[in-house]
Amino acid sequence: MAGPAFAARALASFVPASAWLRRYSRQDAGGDLTAGVIVAIMLVPQAMAYALLAGLPPEVGLYASMAPPIIYAVFGSSRTLAVGPVAVASLMVAAALGNRMVEGTADYVTGALVISLEVGLILFALGLTRAGFVANYLSHPVMSGFTSAAALIIALSQVKHLLGLPMPGNLDFGHTMVAIVSSLPQINPMTTGIGAAAIALLVLMRGRLLILLRVLGVPANAAVLLTRAGPLVVVVMATAIVAGLDLQATSNVAVVGVIPAGLPRFAAPSFDLALWAELGPSSFAIALVSFVESVAIAKVLAAKRRERVAPNQELIGLGLANVAGAFSGASPVCGGFARSAVNFQGGARTQMAAVVTAILVGVSTAFLTPLFLHMPHAVLAAIIVVPVIGLFDAESFLKNLRYSKADGIAQLLTFLAVLGLGIEIGILCGVALSLLFHLWRTSRPHIAIVGRVGLTEHFRNVLRHKVTTYPGLILLRVDESLYFPNIKFIEDRVLTEIAERRDLKHFILICSSVNVIDASALETLEDMRVTLGEFGIGLHLAEVKGPVMDKLERIGFVDRLGRDHIHLSTHDAVVRLAEPNGPVAANPASPGG
Amino acid sequence: MAGPAFAARALASFVPASAWLRRYSRQDAGGDLTAGVIVAIMLVPQAMAYALLAGLPPEVGLYASMAPPIIYAVFGSSRTLAVGPVAVASLMVAAALGNRMVEGTADYVTGALVISLEVGLILFALGLTRAGFVANYLSHPVMSGFTSAAALIIALSQVKHLLGLPMPGNLDFGHTMVAIVSSLPQINPMTTGIGAAAIALLVLMRGRLLILLRVLGVPANAAVLLTRAGPLVVVVMATAIVAGLDLQATSNVAVVGVIPAGLPRFAAPSFDLALWAELGPSSFAIALVSFVESVAIAKVLAAKRRERVAPNQELIGLGLANVAGAFSGASPVCGGFARSAVNFQGGARTQMAAVVTAILVGVSTAFLTPLFLHMPHAVLAAIIVVPVIGLFDAESFLKNLRYSKADGIAQLLTFLAVLGLGIEIGILCGVALSLLFHLWRTSRPHIAIVGRVGLTEHFRNVLRHKVTTYPGLILLRVDESLYFPNIKFIEDRVLTEIAERRDLKHFILICSSVNVIDASALETLEDMRVTLGEFGIGLHLAEVKGPVMDKLERIGFVDRLGRDHIHLSTHDAVVRLAEPNGPVAANPASPGG
Repeated sequence: MAGPAFAARALASFVPASAWLRRYSRQDAGGDLTAGVIVAIMLVPQAMAYALLAGLPPEVGLYASMAPPIIYAVFGSSRTLAVGPVAVASLMVAAALGNRMVEGTADYVTGALVISLEVGLILFALGLTRAGFVANYLSHPVMSGFTSAAALIIALSQVKHLLGLPMPGNLDFGHTMVAIVSSLPQINPMTTGIGAAAIALLVLMRGRLLILLRVLGVPANAAVLLTRAGPLVVVVMATAIVAGLDLQATSNVAVVGVIPAGLPRFAAPSFDLALWAELGPSSFAIALVSFVESVAIAKVLAAKRRERVAPNQELIGLGLANVAGAFSGASPVCGGFARSAVNFQGGARTQMAAVVTAILVGVSTAFLTPLFLHMPHAVLAAIIVVPVIGLFDAESFLKNLRYSKADGIAQLLTFLAVLGLGIEIGILCGVALSLLFHLWRTSRPHIAIVGRVGLTEHFRNVLRHKVTTYPGLILLRVDESLYFPNIKFIEDRVLTEIAERRDLKHFILICSSVNVIDASALETLEDMRVTLGEFGIGLHLAEVKGPVMDKLERIGFVDRLGRDHIHLSTHDAVVRLAEPNGPVAANPASPGG
Repeated sequence: MAGPAFAARALASFVPASAWLRRYSRQDAGGDLTAGVIVAIMLVPQAMAYALLAGLPPEVGLYASMAPPIIYAVFGSSRTLAVGPVAVASLMVAAALGNRMVEGTADYVTGALVISLEVGLILFALGLTRAGFVANYLSHPVMSGFTSAAALIIALSQVKHLLGLPMPGNLDFGHTMVAIVSSLPQINPMTTGIGAAAIALLVLMRGRLLILLRVLGVPANAAVLLTRAGPLVVVVMATAIVAGLDLQATSNVAVVGVIPAGLPRFAAPSFDLALWAELGPSSFAIALVSFVESVAIAKVLAAKRRERVAPNQELIGLGLANVAGAFSGASPVCGGFARSAVNFQGGARTQMAAVVTAILVGVSTAFLTPLFLHMPHAVLAAIIVVPVIGLFDAESFLKNLRYSKADGIAQLLTFLAVLGLGIEIGILCGVALSLLFHLWRTSRPHIAIVGRVGLTEHFRNVLRHKVTTYPGLILLRVDESLYFPNIKFIEDRVLTEIAERRDLKHFILICSSVNVIDASALETLEDMRVTLGEFGIGLHLAEVKGPVMDKLERIGFVDRLGRDHIHLSTHDAVVRLAEPNGPVAANPASPGG
């Protein structure tokens, strides 16, 4: 009886498509079709541009817009995430391959496919082992610092295409600047003109066109469609001009050239283990960044419709999409921010929209590639640069710095490290830094000596409140679990307190914030019990939580400590242990004392 | 006016000796002299044995017992810690050098001195930057697993000396076992006899001699002195027999041989940068392990006299001691457990005892080295093996496993990794593992939906208590600070709750356990505020702590959220937000519902 229901639930969880397909309606189909068409129009030139950014032939970007989104549609948990090539991941591919291989060679493409496969396998493995939490360690300041630096690097990397400069690709930030300046005399005026015009048009279309169209009375959906067709319109115009005037020959304008027509062929990527090992770290970085970006977008969109994104299922969906990409000649994919937003606004209700997009990209690749022959690189560069500038986020840096010095510093150093030391080392520095800040903070929990507020049962920090303390008694509250990162710090504090107080009889550790006592902390507590005992000081615990108590009981600590040394509340402990003549010492450190 | 007082305090803090020297009494001198003599008698053969364990000439161990403890006496914060060569650090030196250099060569000694210098500089730098907390990440289970494995490796490494087997040194655990078995036919019977007799004598003297002497009426101090002289007595007897019967020539018994007489000469260690880089990671591991062990011992001893150990000052003291060692031909040093205990029991009151010990070791090295000529290796091996067996600690593993699965597993895997993969990689695995467990735990904080207990102002977990909940209201308590490792997990939970409750009007986040909200968490809170707002759900915070509130205020979050969305207590929030007709829904999940 439970079998089929369980199987259906398991299927729905591992293959989310099985759930929405069963309830698929005509209304869904309408929205998905419109959105799918709008995204396809936006995606075709973008996919080629991102391939260019990655140093790959344009068709690799187009292939990344076919099989991967279809596989994601089946296994992904987001209804509206648009999966495909994106700017930041493309840059990371270029950074990973640039120092190892020569752009334009077959080896370079082989390397990109190995990265796709590795990214896919890493994401899939993280999903299966439910280890997606590792991506949390790419904290917001680190991602933000990284993204701002990546935006700068991406924009700078396209300057050569926009100005038609003859310079090598895939240089680091500093060398790119030097190369641009030193090759400026060889600027190509015609290319520069095309690039500048394309940028101007794209900026205008992003900003004003939608308002203009709405003012002119164009219906909302159609207006969005026209706005989003901006890149396509610019590409078509520029291509027509280049082809018509034969600018490639007369003015040496760089163009896309021949793209193999037809759909990608199924082929296994390289299984060269040395290459795998070499590219592994880069793939890991790309996988984590892709996952963080995708989930962030997917969550925002899902929340708008009160849907849920399951991060571990996202890992599986994105993982299988990249594996599919690796076997169909595609560069790594993840969820794109702008594209997903367009998909959502365009009315997408399920991943069927992504399937529509993928089919349309496939049709374009099969039949329209001859039209791409005269498409100028400068226009593709413009398509990359215009949206990417928006990723540079100085505001969030200022906000983070003002809010929390540690976070602001982590963000700034990540930004500088990515620019100065390269993308992967930069991210690594950022993660290491925020982890160090985190560990440092965890290792120094807030600890307060408390006293009684008036005649209530409340106890507060003696340094902040006018409270009553008791002779021979220390009440110490630790605002953190007791575990290896902080237990030595806590022990230090306890030993300092007893070293300074010769009249001490009872030491009460208030455990109201203690959710865990690990083995290291237990060991230290045992030491403390013995040490305090040698001076005739009793160690007491108050407000120990149920699960913590169970473990202390099981290991015999409660018996060794003495059952009468465990108190339900701080107040109970004080009533039992304070001198019979009641409170005598007002707290000298209190504001009123 | 404040100048001299401040200078004196600063001096006392950086040079602890300045404090105890000023109050030094005749009584102190008596205790220190006795303890110093006892430790010296114990130390001379031990120092040579540990040099043998490290693969170094015996004098390197003696030198490590001269300058370093004197420097530690000046800068260390422990009054009674006995600093010098120890077994575990010697093993780590052998492991670091064994695969890179040939034992017995000048290069090997050069390498050891570079390690001393690096260990010293690392410890000193950690002390100056007050970064000693990094050592907390060598959690108790990891240190325990490592120490047990090290004890096994040390014992096994001495088998060849005890049996007189001709086999290469510094093999890993597996290869050592194989080599022992395969060279067993070449066993040296006379060496084996000496080794076995030495072990038997040492075990007897450790266990029974003290009792026997006390029963015979020997005064306590003298009895301790005689017991601790055990190694010296055994060494003297064995050396006399070997020399008298010329066993070296007749039975091929391996002996220490010629030791250069006199004190170590001041000499700069190698500044070969490639060697520095190669040995750096090993030095870092040795530094951390040495620090953790030293502080653990120092704390136990200091607590017995209500003195305090300052961990950062320990780093400086141990750091400078190792630097001094590097310039005087010594292997790395740290606090030895047994030796410090003997020092303490022998009556040491200040580090002057260590100075006495160092001077006596110096005198021995200057005048007695001819006596060491016929000292058999087998006896030194026995001196190493007998105490080290006590370091193997199966009991703590069973206890940790029973107490906490994660800790037990971390300990077992560290133990196995040290045996199987080598010392440094093994420790690294252990640290990485316990860090991963820690991060995993931190990233999934305890979260409870709470309801009101009866008509009180107390709110408790709906899953554990019979409480009242309110329609249109969710009260969610997070038992952890909000920061990047856990904020996505918390966001997931919030989005799940709102996706399941269509009648929701107010979402109240109870922040009673929230000590920090970092920039990542703030960003997510802003997202949550907007997302919830889109559905007409108000986000509220209750019981926000003062410092957290200050930061939220400063960054404008309080204004964006709305001041009436911040509540002093959960009860206040419920009174303000719950339907006017009061509680209607009993909690269906409660035991009574």
